[in-house]
Amino acid sequence: MNMNIELIDGGVTSPAGFKAAHTAAGIKYKDRDDMAMIVSESPCVTAGTFTTNVVKAAPVIWDKRYVEQGTPVRAVVINAGIANACTGSEGLELCEKTARAAADAIGCGTSDVLVASTGVIGSKLPIEKLEKGVRDMADALADSREAAHEAACAIMTTDTIPKEACAKFKIGGKTVTIGAMTKGSGMIHPNMSTMLSFNTTDALISKEMLSEALSIVVKDTYNMISVDGDTSTNDTCLILANGKAGNALIDSHGEAFDTFVAALMEVNRMLAKLMAGDGEGATALLEVKVINATSDEAARTLAKSVVSSSLVKAAVYGHDANWGRILCALGYSGVDFDPDKVDIYFESAAGQVNVASNGAAADYSEDEATAVLSEQEVTVICDIKSGGFDATAWGCDLTHEYVSINADYRS
Amino acid sequence: MNMNIELIDGGVTSPAGFKAAHTAAGIKYKDRDDMAMIVSESPCVTAGTFTTNVVKAAPVIWDKRYVEQGTPVRAVVINAGIANACTGSEGLELCEKTARAAADAIGCGTSDVLVASTGVIGSKLPIEKLEKGVRDMADALADSREAAHEAACAIMTTDTIPKEACAKFKIGGKTVTIGAMTKGSGMIHPNMSTMLSFNTTDALISKEMLSEALSIVVKDTYNMISVDGDTSTNDTCLILANGKAGNALIDSHGEAFDTFVAALMEVNRMLAKLMAGDGEGATALLEVKVINATSDEAARTLAKSVVSSSLVKAAVYGHDANWGRILCALGYSGVDFDPDKVDIYFESAAGQVNVASNGAAADYSEDEATAVLSEQEVTVICDIKSGGFDATAWGCDLTHEYVSINADYRS
Repeated sequence: MNMNIELIDGGVTSPAGFKAAHTAAGIKYKDRDDMAMIVSESPCVTAGTFTTNVVKAAPVIWDKRYVEQGTPVRAVVINAGIANACTGSEGLELCEKTARAAADAIGCGTSDVLVASTGVIGSKLPIEKLEKGVRDMADALADSREAAHEAACAIMTTDTIPKEACAKFKIGGKTVTIGAMTKGSGMIHPNMSTMLSFNTTDALISKEMLSEALSIVVKDTYNMISVDGDTSTNDTCLILANGKAGNALIDSHGEAFDTFVAALMEVNRMLAKLMAGDGEGATALLEVKVINATSDEAARTLAKSVVSSSLVKAAVYGHDANWGRILCALGYSGVDFDPDKVDIYFESAAGQVNVASNGAAADYSEDEATAVLSEQEVTVICDIKSGGFDATAWGCDLTHEYVSINADYRS
Repeated sequence: MNMNIELIDGGVTSPAGFKAAHTAAGIKYKDRDDMAMIVSESPCVTAGTFTTNVVKAAPVIWDKRYVEQGTPVRAVVINAGIANACTGSEGLELCEKTARAAADAIGCGTSDVLVASTGVIGSKLPIEKLEKGVRDMADALADSREAAHEAACAIMTTDTIPKEACAKFKIGGKTVTIGAMTKGSGMIHPNMSTMLSFNTTDALISKEMLSEALSIVVKDTYNMISVDGDTSTNDTCLILANGKAGNALIDSHGEAFDTFVAALMEVNRMLAKLMAGDGEGATALLEVKVINATSDEAARTLAKSVVSSSLVKAAVYGHDANWGRILCALGYSGVDFDPDKVDIYFESAAGQVNVASNGAAADYSEDEATAVLSEQEVTVICDIKSGGFDATAWGCDLTHEYVSINADYRS
């Protein structure tokens, strides 16, 4: 890690000029918060990446439109419980009403408010509850550590832990901060973004460079995780930059941009790994490192194929060193390679074991392999021995609990 | 169905001139048969389709070579328990030894014997046990109904039922028979073939037309099923035709070829559905019909995307009419379509219910939908309303039992 970048305890309110709030609006869950709001005291330059699913939820359509137009964003309103997906033109009207309620409360244009939803697809948002929730939150905005944390808790669905990260670093002598929160546990196989991820920063940066930074980071973080292979209709990753850090404007490539990207990468890699490890029903974080592939694209595709395999995931759950399933998943990825060259290792806090050499069984102890696989973080290393490109993907094991959660999610 | 085609109780010994045998060779399973052999009394024209996985098991390499060379096949030797995959050049030597044992016993060339294996990847076949098994079976060959059935039982792994089908039909006044057996329950997401499927026929048909018939049929049957999205290293579908029916040689397109294809389709569609419904841990057969798509390819891709979705499968297990997940899975399939036009129906022996209209919730009763979803065979109909192409895919629900089976398959 860049020695200039320090990961600290923090969240979306850590950068200067950002506040957050949370409330229990009673949208679907009982007795818990289900709405959050992030507000910047001044207009933000904003970048976003969104789901590639042909079926895009209304909030995705709303945000995409205004982020592309370059509207001066002041706030993001988020709700959990109902996804506002597959709701037709009415869904988009509900986005507008939610944004208008926030705009009226904080004093900005409706198009300066972004919205995000997560939860059940196909149900209608109870708009009066959302509008009241927005007004309540506008009265309770705070820039405290606690406010950021409560917001991160409010946007959870089947998540078991809130997910926040924060980095501080210097650009030209000025301290810049990036804070972020994310949620996601099921229907996680992002393509172009994650479920919901919100980054705030006080960096002064142009829209063009902010968009480029986010694209670079999303490709190596959220686009490399999979819980169940299902790409959501609501995937959204946003970053709001209000320029309050006082650094010289980042409007071109160079050291300042590189530092910003490195810090944004640290923050979001941490959140992506948290999301994968908190996959629905998961008992273990599964990390798949593909090394020495023939291209960057090949390395990524191979790593994602292994991390997405139901059979590999079930074997990890059973602490079973079934390396044949790993080679099989590499084989059906669509990437051409020589299976007779591949070496496979399992690695964890309990050590490293070489289970396959040159595409066939290595001489290893099953007991030792089971011990390595019994840790909460397990890494699979696949050495393709054919080139110089590496990639890492993250996922989780497939468990009885995953089935229980998803057999009856709506009730 | 073509009125000329009659599905009858039968298997691989039903066509004239075919015998089968089975034995308990003790390869991995205890107290059960684990080897089968099919023998034709005269040389067969043969066609085959094989896994598209880059990692191909040794038996796939062996069979592919000789089927492509057009060797006059006399026998197929099959074992369950160990897949002989990821076993390097030694794996291919074991195929040759197995084939030689059969060739010596029945009196033919080694290259006239095909082999197939299913089971654990990466383990070595105990060749002496296989050779003894082959010799025992050669002494026990029979053309009885019972012999075919026992062979179908012997090749099972996690299958809970043996899978056989048979069709009788007339070509130019002569009765022709197609018999088949198949196995497959996990690691099922065939691409170009299924796990293991063996067809025998007494039809007189050229190699070229037999290959074309098999390609047509595999595309609409085994290539349209998925249990877990994992394409095996061992997928093999073979058809042996010994010409004993006495029909005029089928060596061009026309009515005789069409009838043969229709009968082969009936037999293999039945087996593909049996395989999907017997997916590891499954409690229900899931059929997904996509209608009115813009192309044949689009219809197939959409249907397979829905049938492969972990979230859709878990919802079917929970009898939960979570149609949003279906629309979501259509959306990430890679096919372009207008989500605001899509209608979705659930259908089963308990009736039909329209759950979504024009991409949004329809007015339906959840109780009624749950009743429809509580049957052992559930059909999802997705009307894309954009063209004239239909496709059907088959799969099963995702259950706790699937996880149990695969968390510790090797022990």
